[in-house]
Amino acid sequence: MQIIDGGVNAPKGYEASGVEAGIKYENRKDMALVYTKEAASVAGTFTTNVVKAAPVVWDKEVVESGKSVHAVVLNSGIANAATGKEGKEYNYEMASEIAKVLDVLPEEVLTASTGVIGMQLRMEPIRKGAPLLKEALTTERDGAIAAAEAIMTTDTTRKECAVTFEQEGRTITVGGMSKGSGMIHPNMATMLSVITTDAKVSPETLQEMLGSIVKDSFNMISVDRDTSTNDTCLLLANGVAGAEEIKKDSKEYEALYEAVSYVATELAKKMAADGEGCTRLLEVTVKGAKTKEEAVILSKSVISSNLVKTAIYGKDANCGRVLCALGYAGVDFDPEVVDLTLYAGGEELVWIENGVLTDFSEEKATEMMGNDVVTLVCNMKQGDAEATAWGCDLTYDYIKINADYRS
Amino acid sequence: MQIIDGGVNAPKGYEASGVEAGIKYENRKDMALVYTKEAASVAGTFTTNVVKAAPVVWDKEVVESGKSVHAVVLNSGIANAATGKEGKEYNYEMASEIAKVLDVLPEEVLTASTGVIGMQLRMEPIRKGAPLLKEALTTERDGAIAAAEAIMTTDTTRKECAVTFEQEGRTITVGGMSKGSGMIHPNMATMLSVITTDAKVSPETLQEMLGSIVKDSFNMISVDRDTSTNDTCLLLANGVAGAEEIKKDSKEYEALYEAVSYVATELAKKMAADGEGCTRLLEVTVKGAKTKEEAVILSKSVISSNLVKTAIYGKDANCGRVLCALGYAGVDFDPEVVDLTLYAGGEELVWIENGVLTDFSEEKATEMMGNDVVTLVCNMKQGDAEATAWGCDLTYDYIKINADYRS
Repeated sequence: MQIIDGGVNAPKGYEASGVEAGIKYENRKDMALVYTKEAASVAGTFTTNVVKAAPVVWDKEVVESGKSVHAVVLNSGIANAATGKEGKEYNYEMASEIAKVLDVLPEEVLTASTGVIGMQLRMEPIRKGAPLLKEALTTERDGAIAAAEAIMTTDTTRKECAVTFEQEGRTITVGGMSKGSGMIHPNMATMLSVITTDAKVSPETLQEMLGSIVKDSFNMISVDRDTSTNDTCLLLANGVAGAEEIKKDSKEYEALYEAVSYVATELAKKMAADGEGCTRLLEVTVKGAKTKEEAVILSKSVISSNLVKTAIYGKDANCGRVLCALGYAGVDFDPEVVDLTLYAGGEELVWIENGVLTDFSEEKATEMMGNDVVTLVCNMKQGDAEATAWGCDLTYDYIKINADYRS
Repeated sequence: MQIIDGGVNAPKGYEASGVEAGIKYENRKDMALVYTKEAASVAGTFTTNVVKAAPVVWDKEVVESGKSVHAVVLNSGIANAATGKEGKEYNYEMASEIAKVLDVLPEEVLTASTGVIGMQLRMEPIRKGAPLLKEALTTERDGAIAAAEAIMTTDTTRKECAVTFEQEGRTITVGGMSKGSGMIHPNMATMLSVITTDAKVSPETLQEMLGSIVKDSFNMISVDRDTSTNDTCLLLANGVAGAEEIKKDSKEYEALYEAVSYVATELAKKMAADGEGCTRLLEVTVKGAKTKEEAVILSKSVISSNLVKTAIYGKDANCGRVLCALGYAGVDFDPEVVDLTLYAGGEELVWIENGVLTDFSEEKATEMMGNDVVTLVCNMKQGDAEATAWGCDLTYDYIKINADYRS
């Protein structure tokens, strides 16, 4: 597997674009399109929030139909959530406008929205944006960049990733983009993500693969424990690479799994690292847990703790808070055997040994915690299961951004 | 029932004191004592965190023994949590030092600690503090105030409450104090609370009463979703009022229940209103839920949401975030029938009707949200159950306090 510079149109047969439609803000791209002329199998995972945005309801229907699709249209600025029947109609209209310019059916166009909840989409900018998106479609690198930029809200960086691998002498490419910065919490994180591949895969196999991968990638990040109404991850496979169809339980399946998993995990980490207002990425590995499920619960509990997150921001080795967050996760364990180690900037520092604080150097800990990536490894010594979760620190800027998000 | 000015020594037979022992900080009270010469029945509820502080382990044992007690000693500065076997020994020594000066058994002295996790208690200040506490014991108002002040950490106000009611011509008093400001989350909130009464009640009846009351009071508040290692609520009943023993299922039981419930709820609300860095109390009532349990889960989800809390801080009527927090609580409901109403400063404003935002005045909402107490009422229209939870806004000062708590 090889990492390449690219995004959502890196795989063969995909074009992408991003334009200014004026949906909510002035002078910024806010509509994106991903298009494949060859119809693609599609898999999707969506928010578990009871309150589901109109595009989520639409995409679920399309994905569950098992039919192929040609495009994904995305907008930022307005989430089209908590918008009732009217919101569903506007969403259908957005799909229809894109279908019209692409000469496909509305049912072949997936939608995704991110932004303010409760506000209705205005159709005028959408109608204006649709032909502009069509016109701007390209297989060039620029198109993917424009699309990744157009879906940003409070994101400070665009998020893209692409890899290639070989299948029977053909090059298969997986590319993806995502957005997500606030209202980020597993199941799904508040995020939109579109991953594309030119491999050939049936929708059922694709769905199984995506469901499994999302659990270890997007569902392992948290910025603020707020699970959004709009979380959407879509995986499209158009088969344009010309290789054989990939079946379950084959080595080709494993190779594609590895590639999609890499892209999904990188995009997830990029989202955590760009959490609203954050200054560093917090990576927490829980090992020695009884089961994978318990390792997941424990690691998520630590990355989600406001007190851990503020300590990471303050470069304060207040490791009792980590132990505390493990303790209230809802998993039973023996606190008196737990080890906790800090890894950062290529160095290692044992904080807790068998449940008790070591005599570590506070000065060294503070210095290590100044790095962009801070890793904590908790060894529960209860079994062999392991999980890693990603979060970020909690800072003044998170408050600033969220106390005044809408204005 | 009558509300009176008083605290933990308001009921007959209780004395209280608070002194500077120099446990961690200079020039502030950090040890408190509550004493009853007449041995008291005791009930307790404790943190559900797997990581339990040494005093929690000790108090659980004492409470479960069903034996009567004479005193509660409390300290701030150091939590005596994640301190292993050594920490347990120090805790026993703290109980023993107090037992010695009061001429009772160590097993008749309950303990409670709050402060930094992972640091060992130093015995020198404790040994110095014990006789000072004994000497300062008083039934005067001053003693309760000193005790309530001595247990404060990042609290900005001391928290006390007392009420009286009549039983067969005798006046029964219930008084209490608590501390809690950060690491506050249900089960229990990070809190220490001591409630006293001069009613006569068996330990079993007292435990049943406290267990039920805590569910609707202390367990309904959250500042930061971090359930501490030290949460402790103790209820002492010494019978000194001279009234008959109170039995279950009597009208006397109901009267005492009401009084203790009032004190516990007031103390809980005071903790939420003094959440670290907060500027206002957020009260969320969920009504029309299918079951009480679901109403509890839904109301707690809203008061715990960082995005709701920052919106409350910013006086931003971003009510989609409230709907979103209801949606990810883990309870099934129909989002398209939910109503959401804001109450503050004696005014009322409907934000969401049947799942869709109303055309409310943003200006009026912002003005109303400037009050010290902001109440949200969510009507789920699924049944008759109701619950109220209390939290606070999330501000720059929360970050400031917690990014640099230990120094």
